[in-house]
Amino acid sequence: MSAQSPTVAHPSAFIRFNDLVGLLQTVFVRHGTSPEVARLLAHNCASAERDGAHSHGIFRIPGYLSTLASGWVDGKAIPVVDDVASGFVRVDAGNGFAQPALAAARSLLVDKARNAGIALLAIHNSHHFAALWPDVEPFAEEGLVALSVVNSMTCVVPHGADRPLFGTNPIAFAAPRADGPPIVFDLATSAIAHGDVQIAARKGERLPPGMGVDSLGQPTEDPKAVLEGGALLPFGGHKGSALSMMVELLAAALTGGNFSFEFNWADHPGARTPWTGQLLIVIDPSKTAGQSFAERSQELVRQMHAAGLRRLPGDRRHRTRAKSDEQGIEVDAHELAQLRELLL
Amino acid sequence: MSAQSPTVAHPSAFIRFNDLVGLLQTVFVRHGTSPEVARLLAHNCASAERDGAHSHGIFRIPGYLSTLASGWVDGKAIPVVDDVASGFVRVDAGNGFAQPALAAARSLLVDKARNAGIALLAIHNSHHFAALWPDVEPFAEEGLVALSVVNSMTCVVPHGADRPLFGTNPIAFAAPRADGPPIVFDLATSAIAHGDVQIAARKGERLPPGMGVDSLGQPTEDPKAVLEGGALLPFGGHKGSALSMMVELLAAALTGGNFSFEFNWADHPGARTPWTGQLLIVIDPSKTAGQSFAERSQELVRQMHAAGLRRLPGDRRHRTRAKSDEQGIEVDAHELAQLRELLL
Repeated sequence: MSAQSPTVAHPSAFIRFNDLVGLLQTVFVRHGTSPEVARLLAHNCASAERDGAHSHGIFRIPGYLSTLASGWVDGKAIPVVDDVASGFVRVDAGNGFAQPALAAARSLLVDKARNAGIALLAIHNSHHFAALWPDVEPFAEEGLVALSVVNSMTCVVPHGADRPLFGTNPIAFAAPRADGPPIVFDLATSAIAHGDVQIAARKGERLPPGMGVDSLGQPTEDPKAVLEGGALLPFGGHKGSALSMMVELLAAALTGGNFSFEFNWADHPGARTPWTGQLLIVIDPSKTAGQSFAERSQELVRQMHAAGLRRLPGDRRHRTRAKSDEQGIEVDAHELAQLRELLL
Repeated sequence: MSAQSPTVAHPSAFIRFNDLVGLLQTVFVRHGTSPEVARLLAHNCASAERDGAHSHGIFRIPGYLSTLASGWVDGKAIPVVDDVASGFVRVDAGNGFAQPALAAARSLLVDKARNAGIALLAIHNSHHFAALWPDVEPFAEEGLVALSVVNSMTCVVPHGADRPLFGTNPIAFAAPRADGPPIVFDLATSAIAHGDVQIAARKGERLPPGMGVDSLGQPTEDPKAVLEGGALLPFGGHKGSALSMMVELLAAALTGGNFSFEFNWADHPGARTPWTGQLLIVIDPSKTAGQSFAERSQELVRQMHAAGLRRLPGDRRHRTRAKSDEQGIEVDAHELAQLRELLL
């Protein structure tokens, strides 16, 4: 799970989900997005915080705001949806965020998936700076299977290469099941998510071995050395590297977006959001032969538990979500105070 | 690459591709397949041998033949193709091999992908005992992007579990490029392919660390301990394990096929072929915005080389293929003699 990170630094404060969404929404609008873009980004960001995925929660706000201030992204972009074929939708995000592009094409994509059995959404000219699971999980809540990939910015050395080229290039997948929340995972094809390196650097923690290299290409466990001219490694050696390459091909080459190495934000100091593309594939499992998909996936979950697996992908998020719904979202009090100061 | 394995044991013999296909075809028919099934399996197996993917070449023949002799698989099955929706084709392989099922649905699948932009092929009631890249590479040679997953038989311990549950569950991907053969990879989501463990055991070699456990669940580097009651580990820890779970969901739950743990061949001594399902997704990249996909993927290859990557996924196979086309396929003389004896 790319979005899992260490516990929140204390002291803690508690905030209701809707209050956090409202707060973030006001912050985004105040910093140059349209109300609709603010609504989507606030919901995404608050969902990550609610689920304990701190590296994609409030932690991201300064990066969003410095990017908006730099003029690198258009916070008011209106996505243009192109109905290309019975299973293929294209969106030009207009140099805006990817989430509004997905929202604009979503109902068309679902209709196509239900009619054709499978449909593809190709988003380009887009910025994705968030966790990827919020993009796929809602499809599974509607009984659909969804897969998404997004490329990011050069920070991963391909296996066997000398220099970074790929992004952290996550793959997210969601599938419904009969007796519980969807099965969902979201994994960076880098050995560690970029946000988790930033969090480790901020906390003064070391990285586990095998995660990254320094500016000379030498292995390092110092997150600052990775962030300052160093790079990440792919997970799982040549296999993770092959999957990261696949993400470049699907999220950039197949959408018409930039590869992770193709954009240059040097003229936009403060810019943090990768300007690339995103691909989603949505499948209607009711077209499957035999027993319902949700019953079959439930059987797999049952057998995974029987094999001794205590925690399924997504379980920790769903448990944290239940806790947040009950007592409010536990956030870093200092971070929350900083957020409120943005509105003064 | 699941299909790459150590060099052929000497002494070597050389055989032309078409001669090997013809020889294997005769062997298959002699052991109970229809001529059409024999043609497809022989071509698949000879292609693996030609490309240096020995663990899926001639090495597989005894397993195929003992399975046919056991009555576990129907070597004469006629696949039933079901045109479910504009992007969804289903095939009941009739307890036969997966390759004839793919062949039977192939032209319909390609037509749908070209019309809808994306199409899915769900094969169930099928046996897949071969490398997966031969299933996807031909689509890329026609300018299409293809992804396939197939589940196999319980031999991989999910990350965090106590007992094996998943199969080696490979993922194969192929994409066209402008100035060279397609970009192709085929990776087992296990830390090592099952065939490579068998080859190591036969050669008396040790496995690298982190590949498998013995019958007590303890880490081992002894391939025999893995094969005799032990199990494999997923590649890349919890991430590879999540991908392996995804393969179970896509190749079995979504096709109507068996999970890797659902079939029982105890009554068929000699049976070796997993009775599961296979999923293929084929995308027409001509629906992409902007520059042609093949030019974009070529640019990615160019940049990967510039970053110091000497060998792309698939490069080794393509180089061995060129050598085999020139001088004949270099095979183990003893293995070839055994193959010829099957026809006496």
